[in-house]
Amino acid sequence: MKLEELIASIQPLDTAAMQAARSRQDMLTKPRGSLGRLEQLSIQVAGMTGNPLPRLEKKVVLVMAGDHGVVDEGVSAYPQDVTSQMVLNFLNGGAAINAFARQAAARVVVVDMGIALDLPSHPGQIIHKIGRGTANLARGAAMTRAQALASVIAGEEIAEAQIEAGLDILATGDMGIGNTTPSAAIAAVLIGKPAAEIAGAGTGVDEAGFQRKLSAIQRGLDVNRPDAADGLDVLGKVGGFEIGGLAGAILAAAAHRRPVIIDGFISTAAAMIAVSLAPRARDYLIAGHVSEERGHRAMLDWLHLQPLLDLNMRLGEGTGAVLAMNIVDAACRALAEMATFGEAGVSEKSE
Amino acid sequence: MKLEELIASIQPLDTAAMQAARSRQDMLTKPRGSLGRLEQLSIQVAGMTGNPLPRLEKKVVLVMAGDHGVVDEGVSAYPQDVTSQMVLNFLNGGAAINAFARQAAARVVVVDMGIALDLPSHPGQIIHKIGRGTANLARGAAMTRAQALASVIAGEEIAEAQIEAGLDILATGDMGIGNTTPSAAIAAVLIGKPAAEIAGAGTGVDEAGFQRKLSAIQRGLDVNRPDAADGLDVLGKVGGFEIGGLAGAILAAAAHRRPVIIDGFISTAAAMIAVSLAPRARDYLIAGHVSEERGHRAMLDWLHLQPLLDLNMRLGEGTGAVLAMNIVDAACRALAEMATFGEAGVSEKSE
Repeated sequence: MKLEELIASIQPLDTAAMQAARSRQDMLTKPRGSLGRLEQLSIQVAGMTGNPLPRLEKKVVLVMAGDHGVVDEGVSAYPQDVTSQMVLNFLNGGAAINAFARQAAARVVVVDMGIALDLPSHPGQIIHKIGRGTANLARGAAMTRAQALASVIAGEEIAEAQIEAGLDILATGDMGIGNTTPSAAIAAVLIGKPAAEIAGAGTGVDEAGFQRKLSAIQRGLDVNRPDAADGLDVLGKVGGFEIGGLAGAILAAAAHRRPVIIDGFISTAAAMIAVSLAPRARDYLIAGHVSEERGHRAMLDWLHLQPLLDLNMRLGEGTGAVLAMNIVDAACRALAEMATFGEAGVSEKSE
Repeated sequence: MKLEELIASIQPLDTAAMQAARSRQDMLTKPRGSLGRLEQLSIQVAGMTGNPLPRLEKKVVLVMAGDHGVVDEGVSAYPQDVTSQMVLNFLNGGAAINAFARQAAARVVVVDMGIALDLPSHPGQIIHKIGRGTANLARGAAMTRAQALASVIAGEEIAEAQIEAGLDILATGDMGIGNTTPSAAIAAVLIGKPAAEIAGAGTGVDEAGFQRKLSAIQRGLDVNRPDAADGLDVLGKVGGFEIGGLAGAILAAAAHRRPVIIDGFISTAAAMIAVSLAPRARDYLIAGHVSEERGHRAMLDWLHLQPLLDLNMRLGEGTGAVLAMNIVDAACRALAEMATFGEAGVSEKSE
């Protein structure tokens, strides 16, 4: 689908489904409002799905991976090879996201959106390389506008194939050594704040590395001058292939009325690109958690999202999003499965 | 078992298991510390269970119910019959705790610790009535010291039967119209703060009802003068049968090295009684969530516990604890199931 068509196909929330869900919440056997944020969450998911009793049986976490030319600036504590090594770890089931996904009964879908190396062939792997790592954003555009568009469209198509295979709720995840740097650059442009207020230590870079990271972002913004009003321009100039892929996947999920739980710093940067392209996509987003990474709270604020979890995590891979899937599932199960006062023969509040 | 023997049988955390878990966390394929609170949580569960790779397969939520004579003071928004109506709802699978427990694959065990009415017989029900509701704590002792002891011992025995049947982790839950009043009284005594700083609106009492509630608690403290140094005295004078039962269940779980996730306001009051009786029991507690009910944060602070979730919930039944079970499970799965850097062939941090 063309990007313009995809964007145009995103519908507003279904207010009739939301009203039905809200009315039902008030009839269920509990004091009104006593499930707190879970009540509103279930109503939002009703609006997203257009179903007053939404069920989230088929859970998918899409983990998109890519490499980043900006690692040449010494911005990460880990060597670039770790991107492909961790992708193999995902495929073999040995990473944190695999353990969490097994716990939440979610399907893990791993996509190579542009790793520098070629991985040994593996049955679970989806390969959609836009390039072999981006160019160094500190010295010029990370990718061409055509590559930025291609990454978004690839993400859309990959998510649509998963929707076709069965997907009631999507969690976004990422892998890419160096990718907190483009994510911070994206957030700095779109929020309009200095990089020093957004960027953090990522996987744990030391103070000298952190200064190199700040410098790389600043030079990237100076040399590229990304246009905050044009999400594709921001993505192309200072983004990454996996970030573009996740943005496309978010747009596809929104267009197909599937709720999306976004993970931490990188997934949120991707969501900001998606919302820059299609403001309505925001209504389909749930913030799984707030990360320890410095600017994440400000990024969620920009999206007007309140995180479900705050557990000092900063791993990425979709780990915070998949943990939160259980909460969204529980919220929808309460809405669909609880008895009403009438059904259960429970007396209502005396007033 | 005699209470003194039960208390004496609670062992300190297993520091060798904790050290082994901590060492393994640092070898797993993720930046050190990047799973935040989940890493420490997995290490604590290792210490509780004495197993460096704890698995939490058999999950149980124990929902204890009782009635409260203090409802005569007009402290609740709901009539007393709702206690037994909701217990039937639990047994029929229609309450929020049932929906959440299905989501988390936890077994729901419902206990009548002292409901005023007799329920129709039901296969899932455990009946261990200490009385038909407590006496009105605003006018004298809620129960005798013998009843307080009997409620704790009954809770112990019920939990031990569940451990025998298979229990890797326990969540506590409660049902009892009016039971935020005794819980607030317990917390006021043990923390040493005025009732007005602890008590909240419970299930949603109006302002006049809230004033009656505060007055009932204050009169209860004045007439009973519970001894903060004697947990059984506090429980007997201003507590409840389900609160005593939960305290006993917590002591039994601790004695058998099973982690306990406590729920909200009432479960936390029960945990405070348990810790008053056996300070070591504290080490086996995990705070599932912080409730909307006013004094809950102060109660968790008294226990030196930091809640995992903060979702504006105030329902009880064990709902916050069962939601948090997924997080504790995920933390232990990450510890046990993730590959190490060596196993996965992933390069470590370059430093």
